[in-house]
Amino acid sequence: MLAVVVHDVPRELSADVVLDRCAALAAISDEPERLTRLFGGEAMRRAHEQVGAWMREAGLGVRTDAAANLIGRREGPAPGAPTLVLGSHLDTVADAGAYDGSLGVLVALAAVERCGPLPYAVEVVAFSDEEGVRFGTAYLGSRAFAGTFPAELLDLADAFGVTMAEALRTCGGDPDALAGVARAGEPLLGYVEVHIEQGPVLEARDAPLGVVSAIAGATRAEARFVGRAGHAGTVPMDARRDALTGAAEWALAVEATGRATPGLVATVGALQVEPGAPNVVAGAAAATLDVRHAEDAVREHAVAALRRSAEAIAAARGLDLVWTPRLQTPAVRVDGRLTALLGESITAAGYPLVSLPSGAGHDAVALADLTGVAMLFVRCAGGVSHHPDESVERADVAAAIDVLCALLRRLAT
Amino acid sequence: MLAVVVHDVPRELSADVVLDRCAALAAISDEPERLTRLFGGEAMRRAHEQVGAWMREAGLGVRTDAAANLIGRREGPAPGAPTLVLGSHLDTVADAGAYDGSLGVLVALAAVERCGPLPYAVEVVAFSDEEGVRFGTAYLGSRAFAGTFPAELLDLADAFGVTMAEALRTCGGDPDALAGVARAGEPLLGYVEVHIEQGPVLEARDAPLGVVSAIAGATRAEARFVGRAGHAGTVPMDARRDALTGAAEWALAVEATGRATPGLVATVGALQVEPGAPNVVAGAAAATLDVRHAEDAVREHAVAALRRSAEAIAAARGLDLVWTPRLQTPAVRVDGRLTALLGESITAAGYPLVSLPSGAGHDAVALADLTGVAMLFVRCAGGVSHHPDESVERADVAAAIDVLCALLRRLAT
Repeated sequence: MLAVVVHDVPRELSADVVLDRCAALAAISDEPERLTRLFGGEAMRRAHEQVGAWMREAGLGVRTDAAANLIGRREGPAPGAPTLVLGSHLDTVADAGAYDGSLGVLVALAAVERCGPLPYAVEVVAFSDEEGVRFGTAYLGSRAFAGTFPAELLDLADAFGVTMAEALRTCGGDPDALAGVARAGEPLLGYVEVHIEQGPVLEARDAPLGVVSAIAGATRAEARFVGRAGHAGTVPMDARRDALTGAAEWALAVEATGRATPGLVATVGALQVEPGAPNVVAGAAAATLDVRHAEDAVREHAVAALRRSAEAIAAARGLDLVWTPRLQTPAVRVDGRLTALLGESITAAGYPLVSLPSGAGHDAVALADLTGVAMLFVRCAGGVSHHPDESVERADVAAAIDVLCALLRRLAT
Repeated sequence: MLAVVVHDVPRELSADVVLDRCAALAAISDEPERLTRLFGGEAMRRAHEQVGAWMREAGLGVRTDAAANLIGRREGPAPGAPTLVLGSHLDTVADAGAYDGSLGVLVALAAVERCGPLPYAVEVVAFSDEEGVRFGTAYLGSRAFAGTFPAELLDLADAFGVTMAEALRTCGGDPDALAGVARAGEPLLGYVEVHIEQGPVLEARDAPLGVVSAIAGATRAEARFVGRAGHAGTVPMDARRDALTGAAEWALAVEATGRATPGLVATVGALQVEPGAPNVVAGAAAATLDVRHAEDAVREHAVAALRRSAEAIAAARGLDLVWTPRLQTPAVRVDGRLTALLGESITAAGYPLVSLPSGAGHDAVALADLTGVAMLFVRCAGGVSHHPDESVERADVAAAIDVLCALLRRLAT
């Protein structure tokens, strides 16, 4: 059996294979000079074809489900054995790096190859639309897999007027058969996803790997401060109702709240100023808010306090405040047992155990509605992601394969 | 003589005539639905023709000089008598109000009509390009009049590739004869300009009129804070180099400096954030700075302090600072005697005497290189200007005509 042969491959070589494969996938793009691989495009089709070939080499049975998820499966020893699902995604943002998504799929495949026979079935899944760039909505593939995909999203159109349903057909899916993709009712051991951290915590802690403690919930809102535009030369300071300085004061309050609350991140990432001319006192300034925390109550408390802070700043400055909620997603709990086993595998391999929340969303968010989930983060250089500079160390990839392989064995006992 | 007849017109009627004429001019536009009267356009030609006709009705001799300034002149009693120049401009910004410029020309004409014979010559001038919208440079007409117009500006092209020289020919000027426009060497009594305040000070002080104490100097610069972009969900607060909050802290420092320094206005009117997405910590934020004060030393001291403040904020936050000077114009002193006589005329007429710097530039800035200048501000509703909502009270316009007329008589004694 191929899997047994590959089992004897030295661990460094195995990491090299993963990195070579990430590089090969990074060359499969919708655009000539940079990596952009959107859901339903020709590049995604070729990437799935290539990864499907690697799955077959590893002895997996390969299929594409009606949501265009690429699934490589090794059956268990007996019919009815439960299934452990591993995976991530192969679609990317525009001008992406080589590791967001791809690394998780290929490390999973390497670990399954290395591990050899297990007393349960294993699937390595490349979910079909994690980034959601083309249709502005994420987790198409993983939500279909979990049985939570809202069918009305199929009518969403991309920038060229192509609907999600049409795009799904183009890449081998079947919008009319999405309900059949759902895996509810099957015996599942859980879902484990390997992913680059996309943040700087592991690098700062000098740790190659991290265990995700929760996937943070997020609130997005907009605070629009409305004052009165005026001539920068003729309106005295005490007669101004400057919307920009109101928004600036609030941006600092947002930062201070983030700094004062352990585990909270709070961000004003965009500020739209009207009229936005050097010689005009701003009449309006709209600041975006993004707040995330692993515990919903902490996040909700912070957002409520920041809204009160915006109201107080506006009142003190004679400004009006328009508060617009944009998005609210609850935190996702990880499976205690899977996560503990991941942690034990890390410690047993001699690596420091770093536990951290995931501030970004992943396919695991959707899978949590189906089964217990756990995530293993791999250190990435400078925390850089969604950028061609994404970079990982060979030794860290080798560590990830080792630890995932150890987890597979621990789950066998 | 017509002027003597008009002298007997009741003062309220005189203000009505000015307001009617402002309204008539506001209907002469380059655009159908709003007032936009750019230098060299057909609307400016018609406005000059109309005002020229009103000047002739008032008994003035009318000509257009080579800089397309419209000049109405009443000779003095004897050859060699000195000339007092009154005026403002008839060009406008885009989507303008009815009073910026026009009011000054028409109040001057009304006062000259009302006053009757004087022992000196008087000119009412509509300078040809004060706003500088079309070619991005202001004071074409008044700088030519003062003999300070840089000839190389004639090669500037507008958005359609038409040069200033060509535009000047179209509206009756002559770019080759600009040197002859300069009035240096003639005996001049000074230049007095009536203008709406374009700010809220007179309204707040409950005064119809104000005397300009100086025309503020201005510094413009850009402070660009450069940090490191990052994922709003994955980069912990203590690992961030957030350019937006750095710029926000500085915007508040700019405001605080303006508030703490009497007579200073300091403004961040625009803030450009990169990448400027709700879920991305800002990697760069460029804030504009506009600082004005009637005393150059005060302004320069404030700008230097604000630059140090930007450097300190950047250093404390691990940001880089790129400081780019954009513009520096010195303050313009007003003529002490003319300004004192204006003040006496206001007090004698029973109005409160409010003395205030002009934060905006005017043709008087250019004329100050030729002769002593003084300015009379007229209250405008809410301080609103460069906007169709520009509005003045009839009683305030009557007061302005009265006071200017009184000044003309005081200058006669």
